[in-house]
Amino acid sequence: MFERLGLIGCGLMGGSFALALRQAGLVRQIAGFSASPTTTQRALELGVIDVQADSAAEAAAGADLVLVAVPVAATEATFAAIRSALGADTLLMDVGSTKSDVVAAAERALGPALPCFVPAHPIAGKERSGVDHADAALYQGRHVILTPMATSGARQLALAQEVWAAIGARLVEMTPAAHDTTFAAVSHLPHLLAFAFIDGIARQPGGAAILALGGPGFRDFTRIAAADPRMWRDVLLANRQELLDQLRHHRQALAQFEQLIEAGDGAALEQRIAQASDTRAAWHMDSFKPGT
Amino acid sequence: MFERLGLIGCGLMGGSFALALRQAGLVRQIAGFSASPTTTQRALELGVIDVQADSAAEAAAGADLVLVAVPVAATEATFAAIRSALGADTLLMDVGSTKSDVVAAAERALGPALPCFVPAHPIAGKERSGVDHADAALYQGRHVILTPMATSGARQLALAQEVWAAIGARLVEMTPAAHDTTFAAVSHLPHLLAFAFIDGIARQPGGAAILALGGPGFRDFTRIAAADPRMWRDVLLANRQELLDQLRHHRQALAQFEQLIEAGDGAALEQRIAQASDTRAAWHMDSFKPGT
Repeated sequence: MFERLGLIGCGLMGGSFALALRQAGLVRQIAGFSASPTTTQRALELGVIDVQADSAAEAAAGADLVLVAVPVAATEATFAAIRSALGADTLLMDVGSTKSDVVAAAERALGPALPCFVPAHPIAGKERSGVDHADAALYQGRHVILTPMATSGARQLALAQEVWAAIGARLVEMTPAAHDTTFAAVSHLPHLLAFAFIDGIARQPGGAAILALGGPGFRDFTRIAAADPRMWRDVLLANRQELLDQLRHHRQALAQFEQLIEAGDGAALEQRIAQASDTRAAWHMDSFKPGT
Repeated sequence: MFERLGLIGCGLMGGSFALALRQAGLVRQIAGFSASPTTTQRALELGVIDVQADSAAEAAAGADLVLVAVPVAATEATFAAIRSALGADTLLMDVGSTKSDVVAAAERALGPALPCFVPAHPIAGKERSGVDHADAALYQGRHVILTPMATSGARQLALAQEVWAAIGARLVEMTPAAHDTTFAAVSHLPHLLAFAFIDGIARQPGGAAILALGGPGFRDFTRIAAADPRMWRDVLLANRQELLDQLRHHRQALAQFEQLIEAGDGAALEQRIAQASDTRAAWHMDSFKPGT
């Protein structure tokens, strides 16, 4: 399907995409570049890439598919660095957790190469990042959100849909704004809450002994608190307006629960818990149907 | 080891204890009583109990081990109902998620049978309660917190330690107050936050579509929100002072994160996330060592 994938950012997300394409027989050659030479070297050793590029532009040159899988904050500089290397028919995608800022960066930085770009966000990940955790099955059965721009080429959009479907992902299309609201709610806010939750216990006297007694519920609730600090710094700042708006919704709900607890209103508290419990018990991952 | 277990409350926790004792060959006969006759009937059908008792007192009569595994709010009435049926050497335990209130209930309700009682809290559970989910391995490798009272008999305390160890649990002893602070932090607060988190999204316009796009992080973070509403109503109310105190710690930490996000202070935000991330990455379930 593709002659050459230019992979810019050979970490967990980029590396997994490369492995999945290779396993599906969708690409002949993969050229990779990472800001850290040791990462690029490791990607080569692991067979994630075939060729080490010396720059982002070199990775993109001659590629009919370019995936930018760098921290969100580095997206604009990467776009600026590769714009002249992109062919007219090349498909360019990102994997960023926020979309409005990436779209704005593309509009500023890509110039005549803007039609190449189809913004993408695969809903997949692991607690720990890095190419050593790359996994050909990472996107299998997972949602991938595309937020096509008015400027995105029809050919590029069709190719984007094909390639994600071919590696087993489930496509959803949304506007960048709807994407950012949705993921502020179901991803960015839970990360913020999990970080603050650990922080709030760890800073108490005897906090370490308290944490040591966490059970299975604690383990699952806090798993995402072990996420990569630099990546999450970028995500929380890039989507800060939507995140702070979701935090207000959460605070309001929490204050209502608190009021019921303080008042000792068991009947109303049970009803409110039951609504949340029923909602969560009926929830299934990947249950989204377009149009719902 | 025991002639007869009197099981009062044949749900997930009680049923699992009965199955574990039976599997370990530690009990000859199990008499069970639940407030709901269909639960007692089901426990009999599943082989969790051998004999259906018609009352809590009947289940306790002639038993050398009595486990009260009822909702925390029903503990005191259960103690009052069984006190005359308890033999002098009988070991009586509960499995409640809070301990100060259970200790106070025991002091009010058990009278001369008080030496029988050793308060216990096994750190184990599943999202869904009920005898159908009972599992002989539920307590295997899990912590069980004992909060012995000054009145607890030496013989009873030794037996309590033996029986939990014999079914594979890991014993920790604490005061009721230390227990309630610890589990307000690592269990009750996360449940409250998870309930309020789901509630805060579900009440927004389009909330159902937003929830449908949650990924693996959302799944794990919210698993505990599917917990049993009646049980958690009782726990959140029974331990409300400690819970609201932990909520204040959390709110303070969250406000500090929010301030860094609003100020766009990437360096300080990354450092704060990194501390939480490192703490969680180094955490292992069941890592508690007495004395730490």
